[in-house]
Amino acid sequence: MSIDRFVAQSIGRWKSQRSAHSLAFQHFEAVLSTIDILPVELSDRRAIDLCKAYDIDPAQMSSPFYMQWEGTSDWDDDQVMKGSTVLVPIPDSSDATKGRLLREQGYAETMAAVGEYHFTDDGTFVLMTPYDRASAEERIWFVNPNLRFRVSSIKTSEGTGVLTASFSSEVRTAQ
Amino acid sequence: MSIDRFVAQSIGRWKSQRSAHSLAFQHFEAVLSTIDILPVELSDRRAIDLCKAYDIDPAQMSSPFYMQWEGTSDWDDDQVMKGSTVLVPIPDSSDATKGRLLREQGYAETMAAVGEYHFTDDGTFVLMTPYDRASAEERIWFVNPNLRFRVSSIKTSEGTGVLTASFSSEVRTAQ
Repeated sequence: MSIDRFVAQSIGRWKSQRSAHSLAFQHFEAVLSTIDILPVELSDRRAIDLCKAYDIDPAQMSSPFYMQWEGTSDWDDDQVMKGSTVLVPIPDSSDATKGRLLREQGYAETMAAVGEYHFTDDGTFVLMTPYDRASAEERIWFVNPNLRFRVSSIKTSEGTGVLTASFSSEVRTAQ
Repeated sequence: MSIDRFVAQSIGRWKSQRSAHSLAFQHFEAVLSTIDILPVELSDRRAIDLCKAYDIDPAQMSSPFYMQWEGTSDWDDDQVMKGSTVLVPIPDSSDATKGRLLREQGYAETMAAVGEYHFTDDGTFVLMTPYDRASAEERIWFVNPNLRFRVSSIKTSEGTGVLTASFSSEVRTAQ
C-alpha cells in the first residue's frame, strides 16, 4: 500500500460510528459523525505553509488532503463537535510504505502535529503521533472500498499507560 | 509471531469492554465482561474429540486453550451473558505464521466451527471463520503485555455486506 492509494481510497463522505473506551473507569462514549475527506492541490497555501512550518521542502508532499467532521456524543447531545484540518503526507524518499504526516491540528490537542506512518503487509495504515504529554496511535484499514475501520489509542508519554481506546466504523455514503 | 506465543500471552483473566456497531442502523451496544483464558492439556478429552470431529490427527494440535466469559450488555442489564469453549490451534506444517483454529462453539452460532488464522508482519492475529449464512473476521493484537484489542466483523456469506462490527479493549487483571 502507498499513501497515494490510501488517500485516494479515503476521498468522500463517511458516516462514522465511534466508540471510545476509558480503560481505567470502563466508561463508554458513543459518537455519531459525518466526515468529509477531500483532495487538496499541491499548490494550496495551507499545505505549503504546513511544510514550511516543519522546514520541509513542499516538493516532497504527496496527496495532501482536507478533513472536516461534525458529530454528536451521547455524553452531551446538545453540543455539536466539529472541526477541520489539512493533512500533508511526506513519504520517505527511500521507502514508499512509510513517511511523515503533518497536520494543522491534532485530534488530542489543538496544535499542529507531525506523526510517523507506515503500512503493514496487509495494508493497514499505522500512525504514531507524539504530543506534549501523550502519544497517539491510530490504525486504519479498509474492509471493503466503502467501509473502513479505525482504532485509536492514547497513552501517556511515559509509555506505560494507555488511557483511552476508540474504534470507528466508517461507511462511505458518497465519493 | 507464532500461535504458541500468542496463546501464552493470552493466558489470564481479562476485563473486557466491548462496543458493537450495527452498521445499517447505527446502533451501539456496550458490553462489560470478564474473560478467562486457560491452557488445556494436549491429553484433554475435549481437545482430542474436537480434532477427531474434523478428521485431524490430535498430534497436530498446538497450545489448545479454554475460554470462558461472563458479561452484561447495556441493551439488557438483567441478563448475564455467559459461555465457554475449548479452542484448538492446528498450525500449518510448512508455515508457522498460519493454520486452522477449531472451536467447540462459535461466537455467532451455537455450533462447532473451524476458522483459518494467520499473523501479519506486526503480530496481529487474523481469524476468518465461515458460518452457515455468514462469515466472521477477527483481528487481535497486543498493545502491551496486559492490554489487547480485538476487532470483529460479521458479514453475509455473499460477502458484500458487513452487518456488525465490534471492538473490545481487554485489560489483564491476573495471569
